Formats: sequence, structure tokens, C-alpha cells
Amino acid sequence: MTRTIRLAAVSLVAIPLIAATLEDPPLRGYSADASKVQREWEAKFRAIPEPSRIRENLRLLSARPNHLGSAYQKENATRVRDLFRSYGWQAEIEEYSVLFPTPKERVLEMVAPTKFVARIDEPVLKEDPTSGQKAEQLPTYNSYSGDGDVTAPLVYVNYGTPADYDELDKRGISVRGAIVIARYGGSWRGIKPKVAYEHGAVGCLIYSDPKDDGYAQGEVYPAGPWRPKDGVQRGSVMDMPVYPGDPLTPGVGATKDAKRLDIKDAVTIMKIPVMPISYADAQPLLAAMTGPVAPESWRGGLPLTYRIGPGAARVHLKLSFNWNQTPLYNVIAKLPGSTWADEWVMRGNHMDGWVNGASDPLSGLVAELEEARALGEIYKQGWRPKRTIVYMAWDGEEHGLIGSTEWAEHHGDELQQKAVMYLNTDGNGRGFLSAEGSHYLENLVNAVARDVTDPETGGTVWKRWQAAVIARGDAKAKGEARGGRADLRIAALGSGSDYTPFIQHLGIPTLNLGFGGEGGGGVYHSIYDSFTWYSRFADTTFTYGRALAQTVGTVIMRTANADVLPYQFDNLAETARGYAAELKALRDAEAAKIAEVNRQHDEGVFTAMNDPWNPLQPPQREVNAPIIEFARLDNSLDSLTRAAQRYERMQATAIIQNLGAVALGQANALLRTADQEMLLAEGLPRRPWFKHSLYAPGLYTGYGVKTMPGAREALDSHDWATANRELIRISGALDKEAALIHKAATVLERKSVVP
Amino acid sequence: MTRTIRLAAVSLVAIPLIAATLEDPPLRGYSADASKVQREWEAKFRAIPEPSRIRENLRLLSARPNHLGSAYQKENATRVRDLFRSYGWQAEIEEYSVLFPTPKERVLEMVAPTKFVARIDEPVLKEDPTSGQKAEQLPTYNSYSGDGDVTAPLVYVNYGTPADYDELDKRGISVRGAIVIARYGGSWRGIKPKVAYEHGAVGCLIYSDPKDDGYAQGEVYPAGPWRPKDGVQRGSVMDMPVYPGDPLTPGVGATKDAKRLDIKDAVTIMKIPVMPISYADAQPLLAAMTGPVAPESWRGGLPLTYRIGPGAARVHLKLSFNWNQTPLYNVIAKLPGSTWADEWVMRGNHMDGWVNGASDPLSGLVAELEEARALGEIYKQGWRPKRTIVYMAWDGEEHGLIGSTEWAEHHGDELQQKAVMYLNTDGNGRGFLSAEGSHYLENLVNAVARDVTDPETGGTVWKRWQAAVIARGDAKAKGEARGGRADLRIAALGSGSDYTPFIQHLGIPTLNLGFGGEGGGGVYHSIYDSFTWYSRFADTTFTYGRALAQTVGTVIMRTANADVLPYQFDNLAETARGYAAELKALRDAEAAKIAEVNRQHDEGVFTAMNDPWNPLQPPQREVNAPIIEFARLDNSLDSLTRAAQRYERMQATAIIQNLGAVALGQANALLRTADQEMLLAEGLPRRPWFKHSLYAPGLYTGYGVKTMPGAREALDSHDWATANRELIRISGALDKEAALIHKAATVLERKSVVP
Repeated sequence: MTRTIRLAAVSLVAIPLIAATLEDPPLRGYSADASKVQREWEAKFRAIPEPSRIRENLRLLSARPNHLGSAYQKENATRVRDLFRSYGWQAEIEEYSVLFPTPKERVLEMVAPTKFVARIDEPVLKEDPTSGQKAEQLPTYNSYSGDGDVTAPLVYVNYGTPADYDELDKRGISVRGAIVIARYGGSWRGIKPKVAYEHGAVGCLIYSDPKDDGYAQGEVYPAGPWRPKDGVQRGSVMDMPVYPGDPLTPGVGATKDAKRLDIKDAVTIMKIPVMPISYADAQPLLAAMTGPVAPESWRGGLPLTYRIGPGAARVHLKLSFNWNQTPLYNVIAKLPGSTWADEWVMRGNHMDGWVNGASDPLSGLVAELEEARALGEIYKQGWRPKRTIVYMAWDGEEHGLIGSTEWAEHHGDELQQKAVMYLNTDGNGRGFLSAEGSHYLENLVNAVARDVTDPETGGTVWKRWQAAVIARGDAKAKGEARGGRADLRIAALGSGSDYTPFIQHLGIPTLNLGFGGEGGGGVYHSIYDSFTWYSRFADTTFTYGRALAQTVGTVIMRTANADVLPYQFDNLAETARGYAAELKALRDAEAAKIAEVNRQHDEGVFTAMNDPWNPLQPPQREVNAPIIEFARLDNSLDSLTRAAQRYERMQATAIIQNLGAVALGQANALLRTADQEMLLAEGLPRRPWFKHSLYAPGLYTGYGVKTMPGAREALDSHDWATANRELIRISGALDKEAALIHKAATVLERKSVVP
Repeated sequence: MTRTIRLAAVSLVAIPLIAATLEDPPLRGYSADASKVQREWEAKFRAIPEPSRIRENLRLLSARPNHLGSAYQKENATRVRDLFRSYGWQAEIEEYSVLFPTPKERVLEMVAPTKFVARIDEPVLKEDPTSGQKAEQLPTYNSYSGDGDVTAPLVYVNYGTPADYDELDKRGISVRGAIVIARYGGSWRGIKPKVAYEHGAVGCLIYSDPKDDGYAQGEVYPAGPWRPKDGVQRGSVMDMPVYPGDPLTPGVGATKDAKRLDIKDAVTIMKIPVMPISYADAQPLLAAMTGPVAPESWRGGLPLTYRIGPGAARVHLKLSFNWNQTPLYNVIAKLPGSTWADEWVMRGNHMDGWVNGASDPLSGLVAELEEARALGEIYKQGWRPKRTIVYMAWDGEEHGLIGSTEWAEHHGDELQQKAVMYLNTDGNGRGFLSAEGSHYLENLVNAVARDVTDPETGGTVWKRWQAAVIARGDAKAKGEARGGRADLRIAALGSGSDYTPFIQHLGIPTLNLGFGGEGGGGVYHSIYDSFTWYSRFADTTFTYGRALAQTVGTVIMRTANADVLPYQFDNLAETARGYAAELKALRDAEAAKIAEVNRQHDEGVFTAMNDPWNPLQPPQREVNAPIIEFARLDNSLDSLTRAAQRYERMQATAIIQNLGAVALGQANALLRTADQEMLLAEGLPRRPWFKHSLYAPGLYTGYGVKTMPGAREALDSHDWATANRELIRISGALDKEAALIHKAATVLERKSVVP
């Protein structure tokens, strides 16, 4: 087909499109007739979920500690499987065996200038019955900490990010041989011991500062929702930005007979002892410190002078662990597809908490269960998904996305053949929809958000989302939200929940959804994340649990039954262009920083600024930044944009109406590889498990995303040669994506007959 | 003279100018010969000041409490007068009688939910001998607070600025009938009770939060320099932005027989009781409060949840004062001029502290005394100032710039006839030169700063100043400091020290200079601002005392002996253009804010964003901002720029060399009115005492300057009609300034003969 003919085809379909918008606009990927039927079923579905059932499931599932390896988690797996079955689904438990360290010995004491033994235990509260289940609770610890027994001076490192170590360097302070104390925040917790270890520290304490997570934020539990003085944020410190999942089975499923690394060879286990503590335990340590006063942005909310050390305060930290293999139970439930049973629309939420886990993760899981019930109901009423719907409940998320990662690695080939989407949720709350994922799904999320009612305002979820962007965004974001762009933007996926193996290792089209942003609190990963806390301070009416079930279920149904998968590549191309612009700006900003430092050296500014009472080391001179090669990337982005535009013209409902089953199958088979085409075969520099060219958690942010990560992290670290090399790899991935989209467009063009 | 001839004259003088720069460039306003002689005397002068003498004078003058009305302040006045005389100066004490309230009764107690009686007293420290001089110390209070006896609920208002009340409005919280508690900072203290009163509050507490001024900043006194828990910042709350000085004698000197207002008619006395307290006294009050949690930027450093109230906490505040007339003693010292005795180069620093006042003000006064000694020394060696040098030591500054204001009002006509400069200093410390003042003096300050050595780095004071701008400034400031602009910028004068009556009421050319920015501490206006504190934590070697004496003395000498006063109007014109650009940007920013709020109302954003658990009131709709008339101002700025450029061509040394005494006298007589021409006869809106069209303390910032204040404050408050009217008045003032500069240029042109 020539260009002229194609344009003619477009102008011919314009009339029915406009006509259609006079009533309900047809759904993307649906013929007009199918669209009408689909809307009716979606509306029936959304009428079913009930807050009272969501509440009851939350109460039941959070009734006892349910961490990986616990008796109650095994019970819950059976309970969840049976619930799925009771809703009419096929459901099974799939078991793995994973390395899971639990504490054998935990000692933290200050030995100088005075003696202080840390409590390292969260007290039972009479107001919260499950807080007293001491025998079943995991104690306060960081999983995948190293064993160790060290006594050393303390150095306060703020959030413990690489930038914080630059501040230490300025003051000529080293952490070599020291135990660092870092506050939670500023990065994912696992970054703190990793960076400390890289700088020579022998131990790491992480505490919750009351400024960020305690009384400064509001009334503490049980009077209010915020973290009490003895509350501790447990958490994994596995080096997940290198690879998540069982440290002994990278890249393969941790089946009973999988080949396993020796523990000493598992690079994702921390090399030094790491321990989370409360602010009540941190206060005497911080108060005893000497050395320079911490810079203003480092100061927390304790009533003391924050000092950097090292100096008077010395602590003894002794940790040892039982390095046991533990059984892990995932639940996998299916509602079989009627037409394309081998295309899977997947959705998961984890099932394991750190302790009782009412908010994290069960508030999300109970929405998933209510969706499953509602889908089962309409199935009984005659609705049939064209594609197979697969719902999952993961175990072991808290310790390193283990259940999802092992399952994804185990079934990787099958998933890359069959999966058309993985939709993730985790803990849920009151407020605004937040959405992250593959950007060709952005349009789908926007469309669904316009069809769901917000419980608090009675407007649509989309309207509230739009209001938040207008109220909080910068001028560009405001303008887009006001109609300068058809869709509100979804964010890129970093890490922090079970979507990671799907998007970043396998290249499955992925979304992560949830409500939040109102209320708040500080019981995360503590014994106080309980049903009592959740039903007093979070989504107390469970109407946002219902809203989540309605939103997610609608996305799942719409994807399951679309004739052509409802992907929209314009937004992907435009978003990728934005990333390229950011990389250019990043290069220029880093170049300007280097040049400025060098110039200030030449000018004698550092010498003239020096305060002899508080001397600072000037930053190092550095070779000036070269110009980076962006032309290849720009060409690839041009190709991608043209491909997306061409594909978009073929998405018209009138065209879909005329496509036969073979063509649809061909088109869908191409489309579902849309993220796989953007994978890099060798993965990212220093971490081959992470393969996506556009999205990864930062090596030094942990959860926070780095887009076009190979190039961006090279620019961050002034590794200009790697940046140039990675830009070529990213360009190659985008070229493949453009070629795929052209192929899909060609299928639609060849097979379509203009009405 | 025609334009052509004038240009020819300039090109002819170009050669000697360039030749001159090959050796020492001649000083502005000096002939080449005079310049050489002047430089030699200046160098001799700068070699004289001795840190040990500065230290000894500081010890002596701060040995006992020396507030207005105290026995020791009277002794110090005599001592200072006698020191001037011993240095060879004529010196007299000039006495006024002023209203000065001191506490009769002070009660602060919490009456609900629990009883707590505030300490309202600073403890004696054995490490600081003068802290024990209880009998002579003023207690902790705010002078010019109203009398009152109130019991009311507390409302926390953050810094108590108008913007903070917008946050209260959002939450639907009123202070009507309440006692507000505000923290120090964010504005001058007197703004806090004034705004509270305007909103209906019946009392005001002001406390020092440890985040801003206490342990969060560093070790507290006596272990370190920062404010201890019981330390209190005393201070005046007189409504000085309306008029400073004795509240009973606005506009006239408070001589014994001056006409006085009734106390009830003095608008600058606060109408409600106001009391400063320590953070130890504030903590139980804040901890007892209920109501909404304060927004993040409102939270201080106490270990509690900052709440806004009103609620459980009720306090009883009872204050009464002795409203007495008190004698006030200024010292006025003169070194008579040899040529133009009726042209006065003036310099002052206040002499009264709140208690012992070692840092504030005596660290500045002892530099002044050492300058006076050094000037006396070179006088004995044969140096003669051409103009009369007048040095002042003020009383009553702490309570409302009283000594300086009464003297300036008393001698206003004479000063407007004679003064060619008023140079002010106040407390001094280690670090960087800071300079504020009339912008035609900017070039002079830069020139002198290049001739003084910085004690810590051994470079020039100018080099360190430049380094600070490069290190801390934005891109524009960096570029200018690196040579994009010949002179570093001096700031505009707001208020907070004795320069105010000179620049803002009389239009005397004014500078305020001081060193600081290193070290720091928290003893301001407490009994701990002592010689012990200063000599342990501030300019411990007293070398910055010497640097201040060297810098100020050089400015004074160079001004005293210039043939033509060393003013440079290019910088004034360029600075005024900058203010105009800021006003335009302010109008556009306010217009955009109003439009945005209105648009969000139309879009339903506020409704969609509302959290029913924490409901917020949307901001009010407002009529959109009109376009403001800036053309008249732009024309005046063009005129001013052309006048400045013309004058600059006549400043050539070769021209000055050829001017006779009559011409010089005529030129100088014009030049010294350069600020008077910019006065507004009727003064500023709502405060006629403040007459300068370019500089004033903000009505709602207190110390912080508002440039082009009439127009700027109207724009701030969306009073567009007043903004238009004030812009015309400012334009008129600038037109007069341009005319004056043209006149001065004409004198130089007419009288000059090209060599």
C-alpha cells in the first residue's frame, strides 16, 4: 500500500469516528458493537465489590503474623487458593525453596562514652491486640544483612546516599572502620549499607527519624497513626538493584532441585551487619556523638545537635543469622480465556507481610480477591474473557520480591510467549490514583480512570487525578493536564514491588496501580501495621479498596476482551523523547558543574571562602565533559514516532470491525512483545539481570527509577565513554520497537478493508 | 557646549587616564596628585588600629549592663566622650528625654489543660561572670508591648507573617480572641504582634525555636555559642516601619520641651501585650496544644507534634509597664574640616545594649573608637580632613533607633545642608564584608574593599567578597562578579540599625558596613551576649574588629578629602532599572497567581482535591489584575541613565585637576543632595515619616527592605490603583535625580578646561 492510499483510507474513516463520539466513544481496540457489550459488562462488574467483604478478608488475613516461612502465611496461601476456587477460578499453590535468613543473635550497645543497651524490640500495646503475638513475630532486623561482630566509632551519614558521602569528603571525614548510622529516607534502605560498605564501613544502623517518620508528622500510635518512639522499620537490604529474588538462584526459578550458588558467592547479600532501630534507640547514640555539626539538611527531629562524628561514641553491633532454606508459597489462579486462551492477562499482589501486614500488602490483596469474586460473579452471569485471566498472590515479596521473581524466572519462556499484561498492586489507601508502567498502556489507564467513581468526591477517579496534577504540577504539567495532552502521565517503573521481574527482566507489558496520598502514618514494616491500625487510620470505610478493585478489574476486563490489544504508542514515543531531552540536560548540567568547580579552583574561590575554624576540602578538579553523541538516539526516536503515528491511523474502530480472527491474532502476537523488543540482550552495565533499555531501579537509588538507565547512570557518574556506548544500545532497542510497530501496522493495513 | 565638543573633550582626556592606570589608578574624585597623597595617608591610617586595644575597650564597655536609662550607659557615654577627646577630637554628650517602658509586672502561665508557670528568666552561669549582674539587667520583655491581662486559648502562627495567616484561613482557623504564639524569624519581631492584633488576637508570645536558634544549630552556651534552653531574645516591638524613635515625638527631636503626644495617641506602641520567651518555657505550651497538625514548613526543633490550635491549651498573660520618661545620651565627636568645614562626613554605631551587649552593639563601637584613635594619630602627624568628620555613639537604638532618630530629627535641617555621608556599623564578626546603602556609593565601597587585607585569608576584603558571590550567587550574580560588572553589588537599606533616619527620613547619602557570616551563635539580646561569649566564640583575635576599623576609616578619609565627592551614578541608574524589572515581574507573578486561583475554581480543582478528613478552604476568587502603567517609570529611568552617563564623562581625573575651588564647591553642594532629590515630600502611603522613593523597610517585613516601596507594597497587596499612582511619584523623584545629575555635570563641564 502506498502512502497516498493510506492517507485516503484515514480520511474515509474519519466520519464514522466523529459520529461515534456523539454517543459513547468506542473503546480502543474494540469494534463499535463489541465496545457497547464490553461497557455493559464492565458496569455490571463494578457494581459487585463490597467494602464489608474487603474489610472482613483484611481482618482474617492479617489476624496473625504472615511473613515468609510463617505458619499463618502457609494457612493464608491455602485460604487464598480456596477463596479463588470458591469464586469459580482454577487455583493452585506453587512452591519454591528459598534462602531466608532469620536472626540468631542481635546485640546493639554503646560502649563509650557511656554504656547503653538498645531495646531493639517493639512493645506490645493493649490497644492493638495483634501486637502481642510475640511468639510468631519476626524480630526487628534487616533481612540479608551480613553476619558480623564489630565495635567501632559511629559516623552519622544522613540518608547514606552517595551525595551524602560528598559532604563527608568536604569535611575530610572517612567512614573506614566505622559503623555508620543513617536515617531512613532519601533512598531505598538497601542503598545505605551498600554505599557504606563501598566506603569502608564495617557496620550500619538505620533508624526512623521522628522528623520524617514520627512525632513531627503527627500524633503517634496508638493515639494517632504515626510511628511511636520504639517502632522499627524492618526491611530487606538484599542488593535488589543487581538482581532480586532468591540470592542463590539468579535468573532461574528456585525449584527444589535448582542449581544454587554458595552463600559466599551470592553478591546480593550485604557484606556487613545492618540493623534497623527505633528513634528511642537512636537518640542516646546520636546524643553521644561529637565531631562537626551536621549541615542543616541533615538534621532530624530529635532534641539534640546532630553531629557527624567520628568521636566519642563507640558502639558494639553483633548480628548472626540462621541461613536456612524456607518453603515459599505462591497462589496462581486462572479464569480461562474463551478465544485466545494462550494470551494471559495477569494481575498480582503479594500476600506476605513483615509482621501482620494489614496495610502492606493485605489492603491491596483484599481488593484483588474482591475483583476475583466479582469477575467470578459475572462469569456465572455469562460473561467470558477472550483471554485467560491469571491472578497471583505472591509470597516472600518483603525479603526481595522473591515469590514473583522465582515464578517469573521459572516460567520466563512461557510468559514471554503468552503474557499481554502484568498488573501489580500493593498496599492501598485513601486519595488519588497513582499509576506507573509501560507507556503504551498510559492511554488505557486514563480511559479506565474516567469510568470509575471516586468515593470521596463523587467525581471520576480521573478528574481527581487531573486536579492533583493541576494543583501540584509545574507549568508544563498543568498545561498538559488542562488539555494540552490527551492523557495524564503515568510514571516509569523503578522497583519496590512485584512488577520488577515482569517488566525489567522479561519485558512483559506492565502496570502498577494504587490509591493514596491522603492520611498517612508510620507503621510500615512494624508490628503495628495491623487491622486495628488500618481500620482506625487508613481506608476506614474500605471504599478505596472497592475503588481499587473497580479500577483494576476494569483494566483487566478491557485488556482481556479487546480485539486488538489496547496499546497506544504515541505516548511511548513522546515519553521516550522526554527521556532523551532529560539526558541531554543532564549532560549539560554535569558539564557545567565540572566546569564551574574547575573555574573556582582557577579563581581561588575555595581558598578565599575557607573558614579556618571550619575548614572544608574543595571538590576535586575533573576533566571537562565531552560532547555526547545523541544523534543516533534522536534518529531512533524519529523512527519510533513515525511508526507510532502510522500505527495510530490503523487503530480506528472501523478498521478493527473488519479484521478477521487471523489478522487479529497476528497483530496481537506482535503487540504483546512491545516491551520485549526494548530489552537489551546483555542487560544493563554491571547488572545483566536487568534488561529493559528504558526502565530500571537506580543502582544507587534502589527503588527510584532511572529511565534510559544505562546512559543515565553513566552520565550521573561522569563515565562518558559508557554513556556513548549505552546510547547506541538504547537506540538499537528503540529501532527494534519501531520495526515491531511498523509490522503490526502492516498487518492491520493488509488485512483491513475500508468500509 | 555642544554634544560634538563634549565628545572631543572626552577623547582628549583618554590618554592621560590610560597612562595613569599603568601605575596606581587615581582615586575617584581626586586629581592625580591628590590621589597619591591620599593613598599614602590612608596606608598610614590602616597601620594604626590594634586588636588588643579593641579587645580592651570591648571588655571595659561591656563590663556591666548598659541599656538605655542604665547607670552604666551613662558612665559609658562619658567614657566614650572622654576617649574621643583623648584622641584629639571635640566631643560632647547630647541629651534627650524619651518614653521608655520597663516592666512592672510580668506573668505567663498555662491554666489549662494543666497548670504551668513560665520561668521568664535567664539563669546565671558560673562560666559567664556578667550573667550574674541581676540587679542591673533588664528582665526578659518586649519594649513597647501594650499593658494587658488576658486569658485565652493559644494559636500557633509559625513566624506570624501575613502569609502564615493565609495558611490559618485555609484551615478556617481564626486568632480572634486568642493569644498567638509565634517563633522568632521570618520577619522582624514587631511584625508578629502587629499582624496578630490586626487579626483580632488579644496577646502574643514570641519564642526562640531550637531549630532556628538553639541546639539544632550547634552546642548551646556555655559549652558552645548557641542559645541555651532558657535563653530569651528580648527586643523592641515598637511599630518602627511607621516611624522609629520616641513614640511621643514623631518628626521632631525629643528635647526636654518638645511637644509630645499622649501615650494613647502614639500609634507605634503595640495595642496588645507581647512577651518573648525561651524554648524551655514554650515547650509545655506547644506540647499541650491540640487542633490540626502544623504544615511541614511550620515545624520547629522541639520533640513534639506542632499543632495549630486553638484547643486545650489556655494561657494567662499579664503585663504592665512603667511608662516613664528617661534621659538618653548620644555622644557626638568632631574632627574639623580644613577646607569645607560645613560638609560633614558622619559615622555612627550605637552604644546601648539590651543587657551587656558585647556583640550587639559594642563589637562595632570599639572598631569606631579605634578608627577615631587612628584618625587622631595621623591628625597629629599632619593629616587634615578637608571636610568635617563627625563620629557618633548612639543611645537607645535597641528600643527603636531612638538616639539616632531624635538627633536626626532635631538637627534635620542642618544635616540636609551639611551631610555628605552617614556611615553606620553595628555588631561585627568574622568573615565577609557586607555592605548596604545608597547605590551611587557602591563604587566607593568596592574601591576601598580592594585596599583592605582580610585577616583570615591574607587576600583583599574585596576578593573574599567576590568569592562569596561566585560561590553562593545565581548565574547572573556569578557572571557579574566574574567581571561582567565592574563593581560587586551592595544591598539596599531596609531597617534594623541607626542608618534609618538618615537615609529614609532625611535623604543623607548612607552606607551600612560590617563583617560576618562565619561562626554564629544564639545570644542575641540575652544576658549571655557578654565579653566572655564574644571572646570565646566570635572575633576572638579581634582582627575583624581591626579590619572593620580599616575599612570604615578608609571610606571616611576618602570621602572627607575628595575634591569631588566620589559618587558614581551609573550603578544607581542600573540598580533602579533592576527594581523596575522586579516590579514588572511582581505584577505578572501576582496576576498569574490570581488567574490560576480563579481558573482552579472554574475547573473544580479545589473540590476535587479536598480530603474530607482534613478539609481546606479554597483561596478566594479575586478580580483579575489590570495591566500596570510602567512607561512613565521607564522614561524616567532612561533619563537617569543618560544623566549618569553624561556625569561619568566629567568625572575624569584630568578634569578634576583643572577645577577651581568655586566649581568644586558648587559641584559638591549639588552632589550631597543626591538622596534628598529622591525623597517624596508626602512620604510613603500610610507612613509619611518614610520619604525615600527607593528604599524602605517593609510595612510587613519590618527590617527587610522593599525597594520602590510605595509601588511594590501596593503590588504585594493587589492595590493596583495605588501602584499606578506610586509609580508616578517614583518617576517624579527619579526625574529630579536626573536633573540634579545633569546640573552637576554642567558645573563640571562649564568650569573645566581641557588640558
